[in-house]
Amino acid sequence: LVGTHLDARIIDALRQERFHPRLKVHLPTSVQPYAHDELGEAMREVELVILGVSSAGVDWAAEKLSAVLPLDVPIVMLTKGLRGDSNTLEILPRALQSQLPSSYRGQVCTIRGPSIAGELAVRRETSVVLTCPDPAVFDRLSGWLGTAYYHLWPNSDLIGVEVCAALKNLYSLGVGIVSGMLERSPGVENEAKMHNPAAALFAEALCEISHVLTTMGGHQRSIWMLPGAGDFYVTCAGGRNCRMGRWMGLGLSYSEAKARHMADETVEGAETAFAIGPTVENMIRRGVLEAEALPLMRRLLDMVCHDAPAYIPWDRFFVSPIPRRVNAS
Amino acid sequence: LVGTHLDARIIDALRQERFHPRLKVHLPTSVQPYAHDELGEAMREVELVILGVSSAGVDWAAEKLSAVLPLDVPIVMLTKGLRGDSNTLEILPRALQSQLPSSYRGQVCTIRGPSIAGELAVRRETSVVLTCPDPAVFDRLSGWLGTAYYHLWPNSDLIGVEVCAALKNLYSLGVGIVSGMLERSPGVENEAKMHNPAAALFAEALCEISHVLTTMGGHQRSIWMLPGAGDFYVTCAGGRNCRMGRWMGLGLSYSEAKARHMADETVEGAETAFAIGPTVENMIRRGVLEAEALPLMRRLLDMVCHDAPAYIPWDRFFVSPIPRRVNAS
Repeated sequence: LVGTHLDARIIDALRQERFHPRLKVHLPTSVQPYAHDELGEAMREVELVILGVSSAGVDWAAEKLSAVLPLDVPIVMLTKGLRGDSNTLEILPRALQSQLPSSYRGQVCTIRGPSIAGELAVRRETSVVLTCPDPAVFDRLSGWLGTAYYHLWPNSDLIGVEVCAALKNLYSLGVGIVSGMLERSPGVENEAKMHNPAAALFAEALCEISHVLTTMGGHQRSIWMLPGAGDFYVTCAGGRNCRMGRWMGLGLSYSEAKARHMADETVEGAETAFAIGPTVENMIRRGVLEAEALPLMRRLLDMVCHDAPAYIPWDRFFVSPIPRRVNAS
Repeated sequence: LVGTHLDARIIDALRQERFHPRLKVHLPTSVQPYAHDELGEAMREVELVILGVSSAGVDWAAEKLSAVLPLDVPIVMLTKGLRGDSNTLEILPRALQSQLPSSYRGQVCTIRGPSIAGELAVRRETSVVLTCPDPAVFDRLSGWLGTAYYHLWPNSDLIGVEVCAALKNLYSLGVGIVSGMLERSPGVENEAKMHNPAAALFAEALCEISHVLTTMGGHQRSIWMLPGAGDFYVTCAGGRNCRMGRWMGLGLSYSEAKARHMADETVEGAETAFAIGPTVENMIRRGVLEAEALPLMRRLLDMVCHDAPAYIPWDRFFVSPIPRRVNAS
């Protein structure tokens, strides 16, 4: 278990007390903690690398790994995200692969799906997909990683899975906004929450993900599988994206909320917005993506990238997947 | 607003105090409450009937309505469910239509989607689909029913929408089971809940719904729209199906839980299990439905129909939609 330079306190705690201060669990004796400058030592006789940096740390990780990574060792990325070069969107495993030495002949795989780390650490039943370009690598990795409580399923829809994993973080900002709106809404006669609006956002998000995913060449069924609806469901149950959304729903701009309340925290949905915002707008201008198919995404990008106020365009939802003028198919 | 014979207390309260004791809201002055034996009076000059009986009450409603319903007035069903005749599954709007007078020339439409009544009653933003066989009827009804906070979307996938609406009640029993399992599980070091298992159930449920829906001729995109993932999301946030699931997750058989804790309540997911259980088993025997594509449904049917103990077959999930041996497509 190798920390980055931002994890020095966690690695120290693990070494001294064998206790993980974030996950609140003791480390199994088989796990050996390393500081970031011991990466080379940790890499000796390694058979598999599992990469869990934040999406902003992928380039850094590629550089550090390139110096010490055995050339035939597979990498399993847990890092979620998408990035844009202003013309097209790129999935993170490809971004990583392109920065590894050209002589690297391992494979970059990903694990996706609903997996809260603190739950997995205490061995709650957890089901995820493992994307591997090569089925033989899947068999090897799932043999190593699968347990009675950790269920790995193969999925060859590399693009669809990555699009779902990245965008659900962005959209969970939207579900968080509803909880903020509820807090500032006038009182009502009964105890009504705002599950109806949250559920409509949930469905609209999946519709918009289907538009992006189809455009990029992914398969629609990933939308309702573990990396899509499954992971989105768990993200909406809490976490930093929802907390940021709540602040925006309470009336703060993204910049205010970040500076005042979450300055030291990585909000993956916002990171994704910054990483894809200009590219998505450009793809819409070029007609590659349809503006009317993405009303919620465009609003969320405006809120994060341009500090636009929180506002949900309810009447513009559900336009593209079942257009008014044609039948569902 | 016409109550059934089971709603006498609610109708009395509405008449005397103009206050709805379940929804905890005052009735708008434009709404006139009627007792069940005043149905004929309520039906005078009516332009639209909205039917919200429980799924077990559809035959009763068909009989009562047949006597007094103007023959050209459309019906919008809110009642969710499926039923089986041991050979095939039937959607409820068709079951209703088949019991109306043969001279009836209105249309049976449905409204589906995430819509908690108490939230809608206080005008929370609510988005639903309105299925109408005839687009002209959709335009008329959506003109009548749509408001600034009540958003109606057309959907012509009558079968897919009904399958999603009915089965999500059954599957939310499963999500409830996880909360019961959490309560009886041994303590752990951290505060870990069971969001990972609940999310895997959520995704598996959508996969299994896709199998049934495809077999019956519905369209896959309904799975991730308002009637599918959207409504399922809101159902998992609470309600009677989840409460029943919780009792079963705590170790009670369905019969025990029903008799001891929910004797006077309608649990729609369990009603659906009884209504489709024998038919689903028969369809599996005949090879119309695939047993391996429905591990969770079969388990839930066993639990409700045969008092089988709560057990989740995690390792049998996700088999059919992405079979181990072929690529996703």
